[in-house]
Amino acid sequence: MHQKKYRKEHGLFLVEGIKSIIEFIHSSYQIHSIFYNIEQSNLLPKLPANINLFEVNNVELGKISTLQTPQGFLAIVYIPKDKKIDQKSLQNEFTLVLDGVQDPGNMGTIIRTADWFGFKKIICSEDTVEAFNPKTVQATMGSLARVEIYYENLTSFLDQNQLPVFGALLDGESIYQTNWGKEGLVILGNEGKGISAEIIKKINKPVTIPRFGAAESLNVAVSAAIFCSELVRVKN
Amino acid sequence: MHQKKYRKEHGLFLVEGIKSIIEFIHSSYQIHSIFYNIEQSNLLPKLPANINLFEVNNVELGKISTLQTPQGFLAIVYIPKDKKIDQKSLQNEFTLVLDGVQDPGNMGTIIRTADWFGFKKIICSEDTVEAFNPKTVQATMGSLARVEIYYENLTSFLDQNQLPVFGALLDGESIYQTNWGKEGLVILGNEGKGISAEIIKKINKPVTIPRFGAAESLNVAVSAAIFCSELVRVKN
Repeated sequence: MHQKKYRKEHGLFLVEGIKSIIEFIHSSYQIHSIFYNIEQSNLLPKLPANINLFEVNNVELGKISTLQTPQGFLAIVYIPKDKKIDQKSLQNEFTLVLDGVQDPGNMGTIIRTADWFGFKKIICSEDTVEAFNPKTVQATMGSLARVEIYYENLTSFLDQNQLPVFGALLDGESIYQTNWGKEGLVILGNEGKGISAEIIKKINKPVTIPRFGAAESLNVAVSAAIFCSELVRVKN
Repeated sequence: MHQKKYRKEHGLFLVEGIKSIIEFIHSSYQIHSIFYNIEQSNLLPKLPANINLFEVNNVELGKISTLQTPQGFLAIVYIPKDKKIDQKSLQNEFTLVLDGVQDPGNMGTIIRTADWFGFKKIICSEDTVEAFNPKTVQATMGSLARVEIYYENLTSFLDQNQLPVFGALLDGESIYQTNWGKEGLVILGNEGKGISAEIIKKINKPVTIPRFGAAESLNVAVSAAIFCSELVRVKN
């Protein structure tokens, strides 16, 4: 489960910590099994009968955990079967589109932030870091249970799209001045390279978080957060 | 240099990567020495004579670097002598105040974001993670060279303060509705525990990033970014 190839092969991923596990139990995800520390079993909620339960001690938990300090509870959860986005479902709302985000922590933070602001879906290029990476799952703090993540060939996805395509570029219109309208996609790029050349061509509304100081760039999870905040501000 | 106690003892910290090092050379920081990979010496700019230069190979660089993939250049920089904030210098602007932020990556991202938006100073409680931690320095991407970081006893600092004290709490006024005025402090708390009870008492304007979804909280670097964005939006 620690490595992408085994997650793919078995269609399973890890969720650690009782709070996050409870979020997954109350979601559309299917839980395969839960490993729990005997001493903390009182924290375990009533569970559906089809979940396998394993009492383990701290040493055993340490061996299957990806964390330096295991949190007493670890679930093995089924990765949902690949589903393709229904373009119509994106109407009347704003959706983040990630083009090649690589850092699992950034990815997790983006999912958590999207969840806070009520964004239901995130669309990712095929080379974006996997949402089921243990570091991503951890950084979402349970929000992965609620935000749907779609991996798409962005070029074909954008070719079929009818909505306005906003893209975070350095020379776009200020996000504070932009007329956002009521719907659209907002594309954010890779940490170092930004949005890829092929995808930049599909942007019809380049937008920029205005710079008032001297930093060369913003962290992509920070940019995503500022976009989410601004979008809910103008829409509400 | 990798450990806080040695950084404190020697008054020195590490900066890695040529881009960041150049930012420090062009700042008020004093550079003690630079270690550089022989093969990349052409990237080295003209340097003041008082900087010690050491040609090293990749293996030697790997031994002094804190990074898994050393970047060819490593500088040892003097930690500025403790200076106390001049309260008057905070007038007519907004300043972030961090109460117990613990994660070096979050701290670095906050410094980088503040720099993007033109915030010149950050005030930290004494238990906030050290700005000269290698992970923090790395995450600032050179912005530490421009943003001044002050460590203060927050209680006494706030007792002497005359500016409005905004604080990020869960039950404050929406940041989108708040009358920010032209100046003030904006307090953000620890990743898990938020703002400490003692400091909450000093807040006279509790403010909240409105939640439209279900996540329990936001990452502190994300919150800081949304505050910075909103503050520059209303001020400009």
